[in-house]
Amino acid sequence: MEKQDRPFEKVIRHLISTGKEGHLFHHSRPDISLPSAAELGKLMSLLKEIIFPGYFGDSPINSESIAYTTETNLRESHRILSDQINRGFCFYCQDENKNCSICKQDAGEICSRFIEKLPAIRQTLATDALAAYNGDPAAGHISETVLCYPSMEALTHYRCAHELLKLGVPLIPRMICEISHSKTGIDIHPEAEIGESFFIDHGTGVVIGQTCIIGKNVRIYQGVTLGARSFPKDSEGNPVKGIPRHPIIGDDVIIYSNATILGRITIGHGAIIAGNMLVTEDVEAGAKISQMKVKSQFL
Amino acid sequence: MEKQDRPFEKVIRHLISTGKEGHLFHHSRPDISLPSAAELGKLMSLLKEIIFPGYFGDSPINSESIAYTTETNLRESHRILSDQINRGFCFYCQDENKNCSICKQDAGEICSRFIEKLPAIRQTLATDALAAYNGDPAAGHISETVLCYPSMEALTHYRCAHELLKLGVPLIPRMICEISHSKTGIDIHPEAEIGESFFIDHGTGVVIGQTCIIGKNVRIYQGVTLGARSFPKDSEGNPVKGIPRHPIIGDDVIIYSNATILGRITIGHGAIIAGNMLVTEDVEAGAKISQMKVKSQFL
Amino acid sequence: MEKQDRPFEKVIRHLISTGKEGHLFHHSRPDISLPSAAELGKLMSLLKEIIFPGYFGDSPINSESIAYTTETNLRESHRILSDQINRGFCFYCQDENKNCSICKQDAGEICSRFIEKLPAIRQTLATDALAAYNGDPAAGHISETVLCYPSMEALTHYRCAHELLKLGVPLIPRMICEISHSKTGIDIHPEAEIGESFFIDHGTGVVIGQTCIIGKNVRIYQGVTLGARSFPKDSEGNPVKGIPRHPIIGDDVIIYSNATILGRITIGHGAIIAGNMLVTEDVEAGAKISQMKVKSQFL
Amino acid sequence: MEKQDRPFEKVIRHLISTGKEGHLFHHSRPDISLPSAAELGKLMSLLKEIIFPGYFGDSPINSESIAYTTETNLRESHRILSDQINRGFCFYCQDENKNCSICKQDAGEICSRFIEKLPAIRQTLATDALAAYNGDPAAGHISETVLCYPSMEALTHYRCAHELLKLGVPLIPRMICEISHSKTGIDIHPEAEIGESFFIDHGTGVVIGQTCIIGKNVRIYQGVTLGARSFPKDSEGNPVKGIPRHPIIGDDVIIYSNATILGRITIGHGAIIAGNMLVTEDVEAGAKISQMKVKSQFL
Amino acid sequence: MEKQDRPFEKVIRHLISTGKEGHLFHHSRPDISLPSAAELGKLMSLLKEIIFPGYFGDSPINSESIAYTTETNLRESHRILSDQINRGFCFYCQDENKNCSICKQDAGEICSRFIEKLPAIRQTLATDALAAYNGDPAAGHISETVLCYPSMEALTHYRCAHELLKLGVPLIPRMICEISHSKTGIDIHPEAEIGESFFIDHGTGVVIGQTCIIGKNVRIYQGVTLGARSFPKDSEGNPVKGIPRHPIIGDDVIIYSNATILGRITIGHGAIIAGNMLVTEDVEAGAKISQMKVKSQFL
Amino acid sequence: MEKQDRPFEKVIRHLISTGKEGHLFHHSRPDISLPSAAELGKLMSLLKEIIFPGYFGDSPINSESIAYTTETNLRESHRILSDQINRGFCFYCQDENKNCSICKQDAGEICSRFIEKLPAIRQTLATDALAAYNGDPAAGHISETVLCYPSMEALTHYRCAHELLKLGVPLIPRMICEISHSKTGIDIHPEAEIGESFFIDHGTGVVIGQTCIIGKNVRIYQGVTLGARSFPKDSEGNPVKGIPRHPIIGDDVIIYSNATILGRITIGHGAIIAGNMLVTEDVEAGAKISQMKVKSQFL
Repeated sequence: MEKQDRPFEKVIRHLISTGKEGHLFHHSRPDISLPSAAELGKLMSLLKEIIFPGYFGDSPINSESIAYTTETNLRESHRILSDQINRGFCFYCQDENKNCSICKQDAGEICSRFIEKLPAIRQTLATDALAAYNGDPAAGHISETVLCYPSMEALTHYRCAHELLKLGVPLIPRMICEISHSKTGIDIHPEAEIGESFFIDHGTGVVIGQTCIIGKNVRIYQGVTLGARSFPKDSEGNPVKGIPRHPIIGDDVIIYSNATILGRITIGHGAIIAGNMLVTEDVEAGAKISQMKVKSQFL
Repeated sequence: MEKQDRPFEKVIRHLISTGKEGHLFHHSRPDISLPSAAELGKLMSLLKEIIFPGYFGDSPINSESIAYTTETNLRESHRILSDQINRGFCFYCQDENKNCSICKQDAGEICSRFIEKLPAIRQTLATDALAAYNGDPAAGHISETVLCYPSMEALTHYRCAHELLKLGVPLIPRMICEISHSKTGIDIHPEAEIGESFFIDHGTGVVIGQTCIIGKNVRIYQGVTLGARSFPKDSEGNPVKGIPRHPIIGDDVIIYSNATILGRITIGHGAIIAGNMLVTEDVEAGAKISQMKVKSQFL
Repeated sequence: MEKQDRPFEKVIRHLISTGKEGHLFHHSRPDISLPSAAELGKLMSLLKEIIFPGYFGDSPINSESIAYTTETNLRESHRILSDQINRGFCFYCQDENKNCSICKQDAGEICSRFIEKLPAIRQTLATDALAAYNGDPAAGHISETVLCYPSMEALTHYRCAHELLKLGVPLIPRMICEISHSKTGIDIHPEAEIGESFFIDHGTGVVIGQTCIIGKNVRIYQGVTLGARSFPKDSEGNPVKGIPRHPIIGDDVIIYSNATILGRITIGHGAIIAGNMLVTEDVEAGAKISQMKVKSQFL
Repeated sequence: MEKQDRPFEKVIRHLISTGKEGHLFHHSRPDISLPSAAELGKLMSLLKEIIFPGYFGDSPINSESIAYTTETNLRESHRILSDQINRGFCFYCQDENKNCSICKQDAGEICSRFIEKLPAIRQTLATDALAAYNGDPAAGHISETVLCYPSMEALTHYRCAHELLKLGVPLIPRMICEISHSKTGIDIHPEAEIGESFFIDHGTGVVIGQTCIIGKNVRIYQGVTLGARSFPKDSEGNPVKGIPRHPIIGDDVIIYSNATILGRITIGHGAIIAGNMLVTEDVEAGAKISQMKVKSQFL
Repeated sequence: MEKQDRPFEKVIRHLISTGKEGHLFHHSRPDISLPSAAELGKLMSLLKEIIFPGYFGDSPINSESIAYTTETNLRESHRILSDQINRGFCFYCQDENKNCSICKQDAGEICSRFIEKLPAIRQTLATDALAAYNGDPAAGHISETVLCYPSMEALTHYRCAHELLKLGVPLIPRMICEISHSKTGIDIHPEAEIGESFFIDHGTGVVIGQTCIIGKNVRIYQGVTLGARSFPKDSEGNPVKGIPRHPIIGDDVIIYSNATILGRITIGHGAIIAGNMLVTEDVEAGAKISQMKVKSQFL
Repeated sequence: MEKQDRPFEKVIRHLISTGKEGHLFHHSRPDISLPSAAELGKLMSLLKEIIFPGYFGDSPINSESIAYTTETNLRESHRILSDQINRGFCFYCQDENKNCSICKQDAGEICSRFIEKLPAIRQTLATDALAAYNGDPAAGHISETVLCYPSMEALTHYRCAHELLKLGVPLIPRMICEISHSKTGIDIHPEAEIGESFFIDHGTGVVIGQTCIIGKNVRIYQGVTLGARSFPKDSEGNPVKGIPRHPIIGDDVIIYSNATILGRITIGHGAIIAGNMLVTEDVEAGAKISQMKVKSQFL
């Protein structure tokens, strides 16, 4: 093999040398496939066909065909998801002597337990769809909210990812939430807890942090942040993980667009937060919070 | 068929039972396909090739080939769109005795009327492209704005969807707008009215509500909300649909990033709204509105 | 060919007539393909496989296969990118007598020089991944940040596009940044200058303008705008291009969500800007800027 | 639309003018799709997965999954086949007032009756597979004959097509047989009648005509023709259709390669025909027919 | 790059070394694509849609749509064919200084001239379809012969390839004939001359050699060879190319299955050759040639 | 799940019941994929690109790129082939306790040994290509024979399959030969032994049996059978496998079209067999064998 056939030799040597960039190279164990966002995307399409029959997919559905179609979709979902859960285990696995068949079996069992949760997930999403219809005068029909509201897309991903996370699945829940984040601009951490009848209108720019707790019947608008104010670091300067640092939102709260709620504060039941507000302290139940009216010439 | 072959039987029975989640199951009439976001995506690609010849598509175009290429794209657009319009009709159809061929014919005729509107839509989009070039010092060449500005993507979808909505097409206009919402983060309701020479810089997070009326030559930035303040509910607690509740924006207005304009208020001709403002009252023509300057230590 | 076979004849005549919409028709030179967002998408997937081996792509990777895989990906990247750079040249070319083989050769050489920059780009992205891990308590493992943080996606696109722009490539850098803008909601102009160890949490709605200069170790949150305040127009009313008009951000600055920093101002080293702030004047090093606390009933 | 845009105008006018070539233009009724060889190819793949579980298809199969997999494949087969049968009806339909829904329903019912025949078809193919194993010393294992013997491919197509033809389906049976003819070089007319335990070794060039009757346990080799000697024409010179004109082959007959058996003759039980023979008269049961030995110099 | 990363180094060195196998390595000129059987397959599909409207393709056709559909298919055919003709030129081109744009232009012009021949090709194929219908009692309807008779497939390829060869196109005609050879088992050399109303029943194994001349209204059956007897070699032992060495077949001849006609002999008008005959001498007009009847025991 | 949802229940019960058709159901071991004709087709395409660089594949090749391209194709070939060899092992494996990783490793090693044979295979195919050029006056250029002669296609498959069979690979060699049998109508058993410089003109209908031994520089024509005369059965009536029963063909022999050579006879060096002959006894070296000339009227 002659020289000219290897034109990038020097660049390659730099690119693959391990140094300060060592953490950018993920050494896989042999024959282990990587978790795949594309496969998880297919999974979520199947779950949407299961949860909302007749709204998505290629073919119409009726009372006669629904049982069969649901079974087919469940089987395919199980195949994809148990494989992805296993890949998630492998991704973090350092133990070369580990018996892979145990992880595979675990993945299959977790996946089955997740499927048993689907009816409950579906019940909650049914309340979310109603909340969307009741919360938006522009919604002409409830089926519109199922078919094309970003809120439903984001919540379907979140509610599935949240169950997976509770079942101990690593990595995959976050990847599932990032798929809908990319599509809708709504960023919900899978560890957040969100009650039924939740609605996010428009949605772009919404952030719901890892330790948020949100009650029932809450409605928020685009650009709302439920974030952390700051976070403590340990003696080595690394952020301390897992400390509750995001807001608790009571039932029946409304938060208008671009409002920012920061820190482990509590927004009481029925409170209303106006648009563009920055809130960093507790708000009483029933309170209505807004900016002072400020107007002035500028420039 | 033995037991182990039907492992999800109980889950399926729950998933398909009709109860409080009945609205999540869309019973299609037999042999009727569902509206398809993928097909509408293809349609919009074709319309972009028709409206902006030489910018998109696989092959170059010149004075000799343009008539033929445009015809080919129009025919394919007609095929896809009339099918989707018909599916839109079917989606809401409850009448089992309805003569489907009438709906099909209606869909075809509406589609033809839409195609006759394309030259006018194109004229307006030409003003939008100029507005983008004149409104952004970073634009090196007008063709850049056509090729890759989110504003042009969102407005092409909106202006087509708006015409379809005016022609009485259900569901499809909203789906078309959601496609560009997902891609650009710009959420324009197809029923909003927007004048020529409109430009949205950057775009992510912009919301333009259902009953907005926007004049000519308006420029807005990322994160701007033209929203409703609140909405009345009827005696059963459902939101009253169709009431004007979003702002009227005059000609030549500029609204900077993350400003929020709420309610059926009027922003007068030539007014300028500063970034991050919350505006809930009328603004006079020519006014420049900004926050008071506020600075303080925090934490 | 009979009449009924040409149903859209009149519409076509309008659509292809040149008038005020002339700028919407891009006349290609014969046999020249258009720049393609789909091809650039493939390119970025390959570059991600090169820069972050073992995180993306279909097959696992280890110490033995990395050199070969990297070479294969580099070759394919070179093929796609040099073709796209050439198409970028052609897109603006008006000179019918131009010798195309010269442009082709130039494109190939620029592409090779870009590939030589990849190790340095990778070094910087390594600092960005660490910054993400250190800047987010929700990150359980550094590999999560590489695998699914929008910040890494946007910075990988930006850092590659920025090098291409410095090498004189037209159009393509902007298209590359728009791809990640669409996916992440983070809009970084390829001409902006951004130091190492940069982290954007959540990201949706972030805008970083063309003439921004950002120091090392900066952290910003969703919805942050680093924008221009206004821009001068020339005697013909066109915006003057290329004037510095965006902020300079010092090292170690933190800017919280939805803050808006406008104009050629300087935010000093170590400053902290609170959420939802509008800042239009210089901020001293070490300052902590927030809104006055404002609360009031509304409606 | 200018001249140069229609370069093939004259050619097109000739190509579409109706004259002596009128029979080359099939005028479809509107909205009726054509029978599709590609769809029939998919159908046959599914039927092969149903009849020979575990030999074809993407995924392995076992006692637990076979019922479900078979059901899934049957449903998909039913969908494709009933559609193709209906297209077959439409292809010959001249009656513009015909009620299409009746044909659709007929197609569905015929398809269901065909599916009820599948177990019997499978029983016969099981004897064919054994015959192949017993008839070829080169077959190491019976599964080889199922997996890759042209004989099994051709007989699977023939036996399915034959049932469809008996159920009154037009056109489709012939198309199914042509698919395997193209793949294997074995041309069996779907109307021929072939007993169980049939084996065609190598197969290329075999022709089995429309009115052939073949007994049980027959073995033939490549290049064997069971053809017509000549055929009567009616008063207008057209061939009289449907007259028995091909051989009747008794049980346990062997016909070696490239032998040609012509006309409505009978080859008695247990007869053996040597290679390259031309046989145009009845052969007694048990006879062994071969050429005289002829040798000579040539040129 | 370490050793283990190049495991096939030695094999590769052998595989690419030039020696006695030099003729297996085709050195392409840079940037020149190879002729592609796949592209030629697409071309032939388009030509079949043009010549036999309503028989092939995805969508039905009628009097209103035929002109447009034909035009679209012609344009696409022109695009593919002129590219393949050019690739054919390049494949044999040794002259590095050749101006490629001349070849490209030549290819385009030849292609246009070919398209002008299509109406005449179609007229001849119309006689072939009638001949098939009249020559096969099993044909229930003339449309069957167009839709699925191997004879029509092979003749469509041959008649197109023959015109291309007459227009001076290298390589491509042979490739087109090999496509149908593979599909039908009928091997017609594109240089053979074949009159109208030609029919090949069943077809597998038919060979029609390069210098054959076949009259009108000829019918042949499967396995018929019209071949050369032997061929002279030049002083270096290479076969002398281009000498007439295949039979001349008169009008109205019938040749039954597996007959072999060898050498530059003439089969007179109206002659009939029985199955399995070997004929190496002239046959008078009207003669009926068959084997003596030979029967004997064997083994 | 209700009744109507399981319409094929009875049919399914029959289809999956094990009885006389038990051998049609291949019980796979769990998680073991089936050998795949589609994958083997891809493999053969890669091997053709390796053996005949510049003739096949998407992109041109030259002295600089050949080493890299060959390496890439070899690696991909190794990946596919070792996987298919392993599937071949699994297909016959009955031992549930077998350690699959041993078979996997064996498959990889056999595959590597096969790749080491490729230079020798290529040398032989180089002589075959020359033989085709020298044996066919219609061949205008040697590259034509590589590019589109069925003989080269069939021999490439056979010579690769033969090496695999010698290396002990089950099933896969036969499947590889059936792929080219389907495409070319040439059926060569992978166990046959064929010397260098072999040429099969036209090819359709050729059969070369399992225990054939063919010398160097042999040329045969379409329809030639080198078959078995009959075969002994064992006491249970099953054919005795593996007995030499096909002809031995000496060097420099020519066998014309449709000749049939049967049984373990020897055709001496330099013999010539005329078309349509049936030969069942030894032929001396140098002999020229043909039919007596027979002519007669028939009917």
